[in-house]
Amino acid sequence: MQYVAPIRDIQFVMHELLDSQAHYGKLSAYAELDADTINSYVEAAADFAQSVIAPLNRTGDIEGCQFDNGVVTTPTGFKEAYAQYCELGFPAINAEPEFGGLGLPVSLSSAVSEIMGTANWSFAMYPGLSHGAIQTIEHHGTEAQKATYLEKMNTGAWSGTMCLTESHAGSDLGIIKTRAVPNEDGSYAITGQKIFISAGEHDLTENIIHIVLARLPDAPAGTKGISLFIVPKFIVNDDGSVGERNTVSCGSIEHKMGIKASATCVMNFDNAKGYLIGPKNRGLNAMFTFMNVARLGTAIQGLAASELAFQGSLTYAKERTAMRALSGVKEPNKPADSIIHHPAVRNMLLTQKAFSEGGRALVYYLSQFADTVAKGENPSEVKFADEMLSLLTPIAKAFLTETGLESANMGVQVYGGHGYISEWGMEQNLRDTRISCLYEGTTEIQALDLLGRKVLGSQGRMLANFTKIIHKFCQENADNDEVGQMITTLAKLNKQWSDLTSRIAMQSTLNPEAVGAAAVDYLYFSGYVTLGYLWARTAVLAKAKLAELDGDLDTDKSLQGEYGFYDAKVKTAEFYFAKLMPRHLVHVARINTGFDSLMAMDAEQFAF
Amino acid sequence: MQYVAPIRDIQFVMHELLDSQAHYGKLSAYAELDADTINSYVEAAADFAQSVIAPLNRTGDIEGCQFDNGVVTTPTGFKEAYAQYCELGFPAINAEPEFGGLGLPVSLSSAVSEIMGTANWSFAMYPGLSHGAIQTIEHHGTEAQKATYLEKMNTGAWSGTMCLTESHAGSDLGIIKTRAVPNEDGSYAITGQKIFISAGEHDLTENIIHIVLARLPDAPAGTKGISLFIVPKFIVNDDGSVGERNTVSCGSIEHKMGIKASATCVMNFDNAKGYLIGPKNRGLNAMFTFMNVARLGTAIQGLAASELAFQGSLTYAKERTAMRALSGVKEPNKPADSIIHHPAVRNMLLTQKAFSEGGRALVYYLSQFADTVAKGENPSEVKFADEMLSLLTPIAKAFLTETGLESANMGVQVYGGHGYISEWGMEQNLRDTRISCLYEGTTEIQALDLLGRKVLGSQGRMLANFTKIIHKFCQENADNDEVGQMITTLAKLNKQWSDLTSRIAMQSTLNPEAVGAAAVDYLYFSGYVTLGYLWARTAVLAKAKLAELDGDLDTDKSLQGEYGFYDAKVKTAEFYFAKLMPRHLVHVARINTGFDSLMAMDAEQFAF
Repeated sequence: MQYVAPIRDIQFVMHELLDSQAHYGKLSAYAELDADTINSYVEAAADFAQSVIAPLNRTGDIEGCQFDNGVVTTPTGFKEAYAQYCELGFPAINAEPEFGGLGLPVSLSSAVSEIMGTANWSFAMYPGLSHGAIQTIEHHGTEAQKATYLEKMNTGAWSGTMCLTESHAGSDLGIIKTRAVPNEDGSYAITGQKIFISAGEHDLTENIIHIVLARLPDAPAGTKGISLFIVPKFIVNDDGSVGERNTVSCGSIEHKMGIKASATCVMNFDNAKGYLIGPKNRGLNAMFTFMNVARLGTAIQGLAASELAFQGSLTYAKERTAMRALSGVKEPNKPADSIIHHPAVRNMLLTQKAFSEGGRALVYYLSQFADTVAKGENPSEVKFADEMLSLLTPIAKAFLTETGLESANMGVQVYGGHGYISEWGMEQNLRDTRISCLYEGTTEIQALDLLGRKVLGSQGRMLANFTKIIHKFCQENADNDEVGQMITTLAKLNKQWSDLTSRIAMQSTLNPEAVGAAAVDYLYFSGYVTLGYLWARTAVLAKAKLAELDGDLDTDKSLQGEYGFYDAKVKTAEFYFAKLMPRHLVHVARINTGFDSLMAMDAEQFAF
Repeated sequence: MQYVAPIRDIQFVMHELLDSQAHYGKLSAYAELDADTINSYVEAAADFAQSVIAPLNRTGDIEGCQFDNGVVTTPTGFKEAYAQYCELGFPAINAEPEFGGLGLPVSLSSAVSEIMGTANWSFAMYPGLSHGAIQTIEHHGTEAQKATYLEKMNTGAWSGTMCLTESHAGSDLGIIKTRAVPNEDGSYAITGQKIFISAGEHDLTENIIHIVLARLPDAPAGTKGISLFIVPKFIVNDDGSVGERNTVSCGSIEHKMGIKASATCVMNFDNAKGYLIGPKNRGLNAMFTFMNVARLGTAIQGLAASELAFQGSLTYAKERTAMRALSGVKEPNKPADSIIHHPAVRNMLLTQKAFSEGGRALVYYLSQFADTVAKGENPSEVKFADEMLSLLTPIAKAFLTETGLESANMGVQVYGGHGYISEWGMEQNLRDTRISCLYEGTTEIQALDLLGRKVLGSQGRMLANFTKIIHKFCQENADNDEVGQMITTLAKLNKQWSDLTSRIAMQSTLNPEAVGAAAVDYLYFSGYVTLGYLWARTAVLAKAKLAELDGDLDTDKSLQGEYGFYDAKVKTAEFYFAKLMPRHLVHVARINTGFDSLMAMDAEQFAF
């Protein structure tokens, strides 16, 4: 399939729904950024993605990465594509101008990431993984460390990794074993094994800068004894040139379900030279500073999977014929009707469309809060944006990756048996996106983060920040007959969100497991309401646009496309409220049945 | 992972829940079949599956089938395993003794199929696919055709295929193009291309007997112009020996998401010699005679996926440690608690358990009806069994494959990042089972079959057959305090099933698309109620067993295992009603919102 970046929708979400100009107007760092400039970056990303990396998506899956005695070779074409990606300046979009960056906002780079990631997620991971390392150095590095690493990383000449997971420790980083022993020269000797290190070793860059979680000899047990270290593949000389090889090496790459063109490495640190970054034993805290942005990056994978599945499904549903519509022949010149006329197929297409366009709205909405966190000048606005980002990131990460998986699965289903065959790309999309519900914190971990840490942990304040926004929106549109039913439903569910929270808080006083038992359902409920809010906003806006266009449509036929676009937005919103929003009912019912049936069985009683 | 056949549960479902002795007692063909005999077949299947084909599951996935100039080679070990499978007599279990079969009932072969299929689905497909061809010849062949083919096929010396699909025609067989032109000798020259032919070519047997759907020159258009032909790979000589090569050949094999050890072939028929089987132009009718059993075979794949995922997840959840339980430390001697203590993990394990054990009950329940259809002596009982099988088969096929997919997906999730890595087997299970929702009629096709053909097509009679059974069960247990809540819920939903049916029938008078719009939700609703009925029956039985055991438990500690088994049944039933049954709410709500939001969007309006 040929990916085409959905530029009209990207522009709609950025400029119309989320009013980019008003947003940037409040941030002096971005005050000069006008819609034309943004659009030109989006179009440049689309050109590159469509022509250079989309064609490598399937070949990369077939060829995969090769491992030979510590050397990892990326699939044919990746090296050239990466060089071109760097030449065009994409790695530097967000980075600070002081270190070679373009200083552009997250709200723009999210659109670029979406486009690159939809075209070829495996490719996009190589520069994507560098961001975590770059941000760690930007926020926690010494001036010397920044000077040594950032510019090379921002241009893409060097890449970066995050080395967290060990074979026995993934969600629970408190039990990692990698050790860091002080050397006489102030550096540290790092020893241990890390697994699942994306881009841990590859042939795209001349150096790889690992950020490694490890324990100092005197570190306290658990999460409060973890420190961060910079461990470069090649030691950097004082003049900034690449020096001797460090004793960090790739032991093997994983054979995985998907993202086969992305090298997932076992990394062995054998007294490797490392440099402490940030305060001792406070490594996990340092990680939290950019975790929201990293998780937002994974949320984009969910959006990308929905978009790719939607595009593939729509193409096929218009071409493939099977049986006649139950309401009568639609295409008499064909032996059967196109399957897009069958309601079960439409249900899948509309679900994919609602999740991809709604997911886009959610990712870009969060990205604006990330802009404010990064560059806001009013402390109370920054605090509010930070809280909104904290609340909504686990929702976006888990809900968009799970719905992305569902959309990708529907992509296979729309194609029937052909969906199971590799050449159509639908099964690859399903395999590739399956990882998104696991890495950067599983769905279950996001759910605990949302309910335990964010909502209950703030005594409901963070949730109230958002429910007040929704409440205000519902009040403002209470008399809007065009969208009346949606607003009524949204207002009701918004109130129920608070009620559910109180109920779980009560349950948890009886048994703390109540939080764990309710968390995933709570997250889904939150996701449906959050996307519902964005779809309702979309409908209100689209209805207004339609009213504007209505008068001119008779005289100017060229407006029909625009009319159809806004009309489709309204219809998708109506579909969302009619067919997807009812899913909240299950999650409410499951929360109401409590934790007993989950906790009753003894571990030894599960099988005989 | 090491698959272990769940023999205790298989015996529970067969002998206790479904009272095999009472069932066989009503069928003189099987009256001699006692529990010990059945158990010995099940144990033989388990031994073979665990020791011979389970170890080939992962190696078969890695190696796949090889295609070279028309020749297909199965993975290392398959040929030897298949020979052993035949030697042990497994291919002949169901077949008529007249043609070398053992004449055993479907209710036994379903258990054998489950065990083989869970151990290695790709392997199980080779003998599995023969069944359709065998049944076609058994039911529609001439005496000469039966004499020529059946014995060789029943021993497994020859295999069979069903050649239905063409590249443009899958769900819609009415538009197939393969032609059959009469030869002077009474045979036909078959020309055309068939795709997705499982076991179309391979190296396991000395001949392959294809059943091919094709059109005669004067055939009416559509489904009423399709005839069936026997097309052997090698023409069979009059003495029964294998003769000259027919002009049917394998053009290529598909590169698929999973079941990689099963050869999915493009088959080219180039004036191949074929023999008409059954009446001209009535080929599709002939297919319907065994479609229920074929679909039940695919339902077993769903059950197998749930079982395999459950076994893998349970093993890992007991071993893997991460974080402490929210209610306090469970395993103080470990650095963290086993993840089986975390409610979100328990939710996944219990869901898999409820679907695998409940799915087993459903498959075996249907298999008893298939026994009665095959060997019943009372015409009204046969008719009733046939209607029950017709009603419940699309439910079992679609609901068990979709829930199998969900269980397999949870298998990946329980393992966290490790689930995405091939060596653990969880991602293979997900890839392998994904096809089950597509072949033998997609979920959407099953849903239309259930709602349109079976329920509405019989004016509700077929549904009433079953709802009366459920109603009677609920009445009989109305005073059973031990399971009161389950019975109340089941009775309510049983009534709602009829109400929903009426509502859809009304909607469809306004617009025939209402049936297509509601069908998938109707199928899921039906699935949850059907499994709910079997879980409620299980709970009633298990509660009675627990009451029996209760008195003896203090004096005989050896009964603790049995007590735990029945207690787990009750707890799983309670979990099912508390956490899975609420899913019906979404499907009811979606049916109630009708078809407007599905049908409103123009085909050209889906994307801009």
